Amino acid sequence: MASDPPPLPSVAYLGPRTSYSHQAAIECFDPTTHTFEPQTTIEDIFIAVESRAVTYGVVPFENSTNGSVVLTLDLFCDRHSLFPNILVCGEVYLDVHHCLLSTASSVADITRLYSHPQAFGQCEIYLNAYLKGVERIDVSSTSKAAQIAAGDPNSAAIASKVAADVPGLRILASDIEDSHDNTTRFFVLSATERAPAGPLGEKHKTLLSFTIDHQLPGALCDGLKVFKEYGLNLTSIVSRPSRVLKWNYIFFVEFEGHSETENARAALKELGAYCPEMRVLGSYMDKQSRKGTRYNE
Amino acid sequence: MASDPPPLPSVAYLGPRTSYSHQAAIECFDPTTHTFEPQTTIEDIFIAVESRAVTYGVVPFENSTNGSVVLTLDLFCDRHSLFPNILVCGEVYLDVHHCLLSTASSVADITRLYSHPQAFGQCEIYLNAYLKGVERIDVSSTSKAAQIAAGDPNSAAIASKVAADVPGLRILASDIEDSHDNTTRFFVLSATERAPAGPLGEKHKTLLSFTIDHQLPGALCDGLKVFKEYGLNLTSIVSRPSRVLKWNYIFFVEFEGHSETENARAALKELGAYCPEMRVLGSYMDKQSRKGTRYNE
Repeated sequence: MASDPPPLPSVAYLGPRTSYSHQAAIECFDPTTHTFEPQTTIEDIFIAVESRAVTYGVVPFENSTNGSVVLTLDLFCDRHSLFPNILVCGEVYLDVHHCLLSTASSVADITRLYSHPQAFGQCEIYLNAYLKGVERIDVSSTSKAAQIAAGDPNSAAIASKVAADVPGLRILASDIEDSHDNTTRFFVLSATERAPAGPLGEKHKTLLSFTIDHQLPGALCDGLKVFKEYGLNLTSIVSRPSRVLKWNYIFFVEFEGHSETENARAALKELGAYCPEMRVLGSYMDKQSRKGTRYNE
Repeated sequence: MASDPPPLPSVAYLGPRTSYSHQAAIECFDPTTHTFEPQTTIEDIFIAVESRAVTYGVVPFENSTNGSVVLTLDLFCDRHSLFPNILVCGEVYLDVHHCLLSTASSVADITRLYSHPQAFGQCEIYLNAYLKGVERIDVSSTSKAAQIAAGDPNSAAIASKVAADVPGLRILASDIEDSHDNTTRFFVLSATERAPAGPLGEKHKTLLSFTIDHQLPGALCDGLKVFKEYGLNLTSIVSRPSRVLKWNYIFFVEFEGHSETENARAALKELGAYCPEMRVLGSYMDKQSRKGTRYNE
């Protein structure tokens, strides 16, 4: 008797279906060989990955117009050590085009707007021109905003064209984002160390978090100097409050290169000796120049 | 005949009255010798100062729990050159304690929460414990949230104790912020260059913004090295998307020292030659260690 086939690997994303996160997950993982599990919050994705309830998680990290996704950064800070096994193992870039979706027939009828705070931030020029002063209600995802707007007359949602697939909703305006080059970058999370995809010589990037001793003058500069000394180009630096000491920060740095190359190992060793806390959050293929290639190919 | 006395200097803040910004403005400027002008948005404060409709503006810059105030950073980015004369001429630190205000008599009756997004971010532990899943509605200030909650049964606002001074509202819970050490830092804006308050040897800080050429490896590190070479300690570094080139950023750096000291002048000259864009946003007395002293004393 043939045994059952092994279950397909599963991917948690910020739901509901038709969200930008869902689109990123589909862009990254082949739907014929993976199952997709919508989650209510970004924290739920971290929990699902850490507990191995799913194989992968896809979380938004930054948007080219509106900057960091603070909720995701705060989860990577892991101030209560809830996610010791979470690793970044991939990245995805998704073109983001927003629409104004409503059951109303005209923008003039709209008295209430639903969307994710990041989406409001990406459409300021359009909103200031056509919907200035209209009440804005934050919801946890743009696709949920579309569902709510479908049931609330005189309201509208800012969401994707795909999210217009809710009965009653029509697209009142398309491409309302400030920058038509609007892109959101997602990270793929896993709780299992994976062998690097391809040789280390291929183009990788590495994300790490660290704290520095703010009592030392020039401490941050000295920390960053390590990367330069070992020829590792920084592609991103952001910070969040440490919430331990006031006006102290957890820094996130991304550099070009895999953490297991000789140079990166030496740099991380030097930085680690210097920082009260340091954590390598993962190395992954650089997808910025390879848009459209699937993570698992 | 005696001429009219000159008008009192005026201070714009993020209204309505009783907001944290109002409290910061009062902490900073003597109410017997200044008038106070509430504004609807942080952008309105920048506009009022730039047009010289007011003498000063007070804007929130960062919170010790929740990090940067992105709206203020984006106005300092001044991507459309609307605020060429805006200067930071002072800073204020305000202890922030949040209350849950409602017309309801019990937390169990609350189905809707109003507050400023920053305040939600500062009360996550309390909200997760007692109001998990309750709908959150962002409004432009905590004091406005209190006014709305007063007219909406089964709702509550997160705002200051001072904001409870609205008929019908009662304080259901006090000190609900995650960190009881919760502090917001405000900047004082002016459009007129002022002579430094006191000798340059006194403890000042300087804020500047700059862009770097991301094509050069180690460019950010090289930029920051200038401060170290001239013995200028960095107290803050944050960034926002440039919105000109994707994944390029405008950096904000604060260092200890006045921009007119010899060392700072040399460092800024060196950095300026190196950065495509650079702007000194102002020098001001360091108030972190001098809490409670008025800006204009």
